[in-house]
Amino acid sequence: MALDHIVALVGGVGGAKLALGLAKILPPQHLTIIVNTADDFWHYGLRISPDLDTVMYNLAGMIDPINGWGLAGDTTITLDALRQDYGEETWFRLGDRDMATHLLRTMWWHEGVSLTEIVRRLSSRLGIEHTILPMTDYPVETIVETVTGERLVFQKYFVWERWQPVVKTLHYKGIESATMSQAVKQAIETADAILIAPSNPFLSIAPILAVPGLRDAVIARDVPRVAISPIIGGKAVKGPAAKLMAELGYTPSASAVAEYYGIIVNGFVYDAQDADLTVNTPRATTFDTFMQSDADKVALAQNILNWITDWD
Amino acid sequence: MALDHIVALVGGVGGAKLALGLAKILPPQHLTIIVNTADDFWHYGLRISPDLDTVMYNLAGMIDPINGWGLAGDTTITLDALRQDYGEETWFRLGDRDMATHLLRTMWWHEGVSLTEIVRRLSSRLGIEHTILPMTDYPVETIVETVTGERLVFQKYFVWERWQPVVKTLHYKGIESATMSQAVKQAIETADAILIAPSNPFLSIAPILAVPGLRDAVIARDVPRVAISPIIGGKAVKGPAAKLMAELGYTPSASAVAEYYGIIVNGFVYDAQDADLTVNTPRATTFDTFMQSDADKVALAQNILNWITDWD
Repeated sequence: MALDHIVALVGGVGGAKLALGLAKILPPQHLTIIVNTADDFWHYGLRISPDLDTVMYNLAGMIDPINGWGLAGDTTITLDALRQDYGEETWFRLGDRDMATHLLRTMWWHEGVSLTEIVRRLSSRLGIEHTILPMTDYPVETIVETVTGERLVFQKYFVWERWQPVVKTLHYKGIESATMSQAVKQAIETADAILIAPSNPFLSIAPILAVPGLRDAVIARDVPRVAISPIIGGKAVKGPAAKLMAELGYTPSASAVAEYYGIIVNGFVYDAQDADLTVNTPRATTFDTFMQSDADKVALAQNILNWITDWD
Repeated sequence: MALDHIVALVGGVGGAKLALGLAKILPPQHLTIIVNTADDFWHYGLRISPDLDTVMYNLAGMIDPINGWGLAGDTTITLDALRQDYGEETWFRLGDRDMATHLLRTMWWHEGVSLTEIVRRLSSRLGIEHTILPMTDYPVETIVETVTGERLVFQKYFVWERWQPVVKTLHYKGIESATMSQAVKQAIETADAILIAPSNPFLSIAPILAVPGLRDAVIARDVPRVAISPIIGGKAVKGPAAKLMAELGYTPSASAVAEYYGIIVNGFVYDAQDADLTVNTPRATTFDTFMQSDADKVALAQNILNWITDWD
């Protein structure tokens, strides 16, 4: 099977690792990365797109290798001034070099430029040749409703509360008015395979699939539609994926991830150490899915591409 | 004569020096500083108010003593990233610590907060107790029309072109729709003396006086209304004041400044080295007006206050 156009649905840190692996193998015109934007928010008047930036900075080779987000070696002089000079609570890290991205995005946003075009401008100026697309040009906002009835905007839950509150349900505010951009629609319609990165299924992938029409557009494609489990040995590599699964009624495991994606996927990749698990997806395979080095990312991407190339 | 409330009209660097001298002498409730905002502009989506910041940073003791504007010891990491990562032309210096001010101002501006209230918030958080007021809450934009017919927005003329083009005329765009805030109106109406700082008469003071009703409100007050000459020995201490006077048909001198202010003032202060000049103002005196150290600023402020206290 020719794989001339791979589409990957990705969130932040984990998804961006696979995106980087794919980008290091596939020529620019062979890969489209569709990124969650439901974590986007306004902060100090800046439009912040955490997942888009994580993907962009990964592909530009600028990512902070320690955190997995932000820019390597960045400082926080402005943030320190907000706290020390102006007494602000500075719970969300904004780097000084990173600030350039936020300024340009916010400036163009206020000028009425679409997020798709903003990402195109930013990534092309950073020398990125692969296509990165926001899941939608419309603002969508993940709201976390906790068991105590509190409703937290995503970054308050994720950064301020360090994802400690017990989640009852998630809302993607604004999603019903969001639409797929022409670019996203076309990418899915022309994909030779669709990969769902090992991102948080609820916080990163669910909002993408919730963009009206997107889930159906994916399912309608008779091509490999493969999710990669973010759960290894019952645990998330990073972040609240496992904790959240448990809170939402799933036993955290690769099997449960596969069950959650259901008919959206027809293939599933999970970690070799979970090989004894049963996965109810038409096709499934195991690889070493833990990505640390760039070589790990390339290896996993290559294994997945090789595997789906062999599908009849 | 009791001087319980001094109002100073000021621009940037030179005016801020006198404002600092006054603030070091007068208790907070005895001084109101009305600041030019016609240099304000949008830059990278940020609302920048150069003169307000210069006054604020002076009064907060944060000013860069070398440049006379910006923050002492500030860095430009964001600006460098705009240039190096994104290929932007970065002709207007934005410091990283300074950025905190621009972010807060811009955020509040977009929330619909008046500039008067923004300045109150910023300056009170910086520990400034004296009242700093923008000349108006409405956006006004100085447009510089050159002899070649070019029309430059102020910062392009001032920073980008380093005030080298020959000026034919100046426009204060938006001034006809601007109004005095209640705070500015009340300050002028209750002033026991009104000082016009040694700022650029055309670029800094003229826009303030051009706010509809403001010039008349000043003239209507039967109190000392004293301008301090920014021209010493035929030259500007800093910036284009002398060059601009010549281009606009005045011989650069303290006499010409006094002539320019005409009936707006009833008293005039100029430098001791210009003592041989004739000044056509009802009252006039000379002092050492060159301000370098804080002691210079306090001395000039004190000399002016002593002088007008002696008026009958």
